[in-house]
Order: sequence, then C-alpha cells, then structure tokens
Amino acid sequence: MRHTISVLVENKFGVLARIATLFAARGFNIDSLAVGETEDPAISRMTIVVKGDDDILEQVTKQLNKLVDVIKVNDFNDVGYVERGLALLKINVTKSNRAEIMQMVDVFRAKIIDVSQDSIIAEITGDEEKIDAFVKMIMPYGIKEMCQTGTVALARGNK
Amino acid sequence: MRHTISVLVENKFGVLARIATLFAARGFNIDSLAVGETEDPAISRMTIVVKGDDDILEQVTKQLNKLVDVIKVNDFNDVGYVERGLALLKINVTKSNRAEIMQMVDVFRAKIIDVSQDSIIAEITGDEEKIDAFVKMIMPYGIKEMCQTGTVALARGNK
Repeated sequence: MRHTISVLVENKFGVLARIATLFAARGFNIDSLAVGETEDPAISRMTIVVKGDDDILEQVTKQLNKLVDVIKVNDFNDVGYVERGLALLKINVTKSNRAEIMQMVDVFRAKIIDVSQDSIIAEITGDEEKIDAFVKMIMPYGIKEMCQTGTVALARGNK
Repeated sequence: MRHTISVLVENKFGVLARIATLFAARGFNIDSLAVGETEDPAISRMTIVVKGDDDILEQVTKQLNKLVDVIKVNDFNDVGYVERGLALLKINVTKSNRAEIMQMVDVFRAKIIDVSQDSIIAEITGDEEKIDAFVKMIMPYGIKEMCQTGTVALARGNK
C-alpha cells in the first residue's frame, strides 16, 4: 500500500543518512522524498512516500520513533490530508507546435518560466496524479529534461 | 558557498542512503533535498542544495561520480538555471484577520487549498527567497504547521 509519512527531525547533519539507511535496510525503496525546513529553522520535516508491506512499514515507523533526532512520525493514511508536489519540464518546441503546447500548459494551470528558441520550461504543481497526467500529455512533444520535488503533505484543518 | 547540485541516479533502493551517507561523512548538512522520478521511471533525479567549502564539495562530487548507480552529476552554479520549490503552510485565521491573510496570499500568488473554521492551508511556489519572504510575512499570524519540498532546478534552454 502507498503511504505518505511525515517525519519531524532535528536539522542536524547525518539524520537524513540514518533515516534513508533505515528504509534501505528493510528493503523499502523511497518513491519520493522531500526535505525542507519548517517554520522553526532548527527543525526539518521529511515527507516520505513509500509503497510496501504495511506490517514492515509499521516496524520501520517504530524504529524511526526511536532515533534520537526524530521528533515525531505521522502516517497521513490515518487522517484526511492534502498533498502537493512540483515538477519542472523542459519541453521541445517548434514554431508549428508552440501554440498547441502553450494551450496544454494552460489547461493544466501550469506556468511557463523559461523560453528559448527550441524549448520552454514549464512548472506544474499538484498531487502525483495531476503531475503524471501532465507528463503523459507532454511526452509526445519530447521532454528534454525533467525534475520533480517529492510530495509534501499536511493534515487538513480539524473540525 | 551555496551550491545546487543535480544527480541523476538509477531508481534502485539504497542509492539515496549511499549518497546521503557520502555527504554526511564529509560533514555536509544537506539544506534541501528533492528526489523524484524523471521522464524515465527507471531514473530518478536528486536535487541537493548544500552550503560549504567549495574544494571539499568538489571532492564529494567526484566521489558521487564513482558510485555505480550515479549516472550524471551537475553543479548548477556553472550554468544559468531556474529553480523552484513548493511550501504548504497551515495558517491560523480568525474572522477578523481572514481578509488580510487572503490578501497576502494573493500578493504572493499563492493558492488556498484547504479551509477550516480556524485555519487555512496555502500553497506557494517559487525560489528559496520568495518562499522565505512569504513565510516571514505570514509568521505573525501564526503558522500551525509547515512543510517544504526541496528545491528543484533545470538549466535554462540553450540557443
């Protein structure tokens, strides 16, 4: 099953290595990982998306909780949440297909952030599904390069 | 100096752990890290932002290049590039300051993606500086929770 896990950690060096090693040791491949500072610069939040066996994942979560620099572990599958990621795509364009590509960018509410003679860079945000759909639509034009952030997530406001 | 480094890797388990360990062993704290699939699902791209000694970083880059699962390492400081990240902020709102906060969200071209009685979740994209500026403006209202993706970057299109 797919799990989105949030790990609050002390912003110290080596923490990321320890956590990544923990997942690797259990045979989990991390689908997506996002690490960034929180409102408190001393604390970072990792958002990890993994697919795998639920029981083993529960063990990994328990082990995470035991690490000194880990403050809190949350599995978003237990609550309502929103998730978002961002992708940058460098797309091949020609005079003849430029308008068509621009239209596609518009439909997905993506943004063009760089233009050159034969390529544009588009920025798109959304959940995994939306980004995947955009990539699929753009693929036939030719994607020169692409990079994605991992997914980040927050629990919805309560009540 | 601040460096934005892109590492193309085989999408295999354990690669992230090895790379994170390499940086940790040299005393580099990773400021931000983004891992996501590229247009080829077998290949992931890591974007790593680090600050530190240039000479040591060059050594780390060389060692990265030697890892079996690493396909290519690029330091964006050598070329023109665009970079973007995404942050989600859960902000405290009251009846009296709701309008004011909405306005701020508008000015930064952020988006509101969840609303509850006493909080909203805003999504903002931009480079580090823009996201930091938004966080600073929102801080006084009270940030309940926040998470950021790491920064991703692409070289600008060449002519």
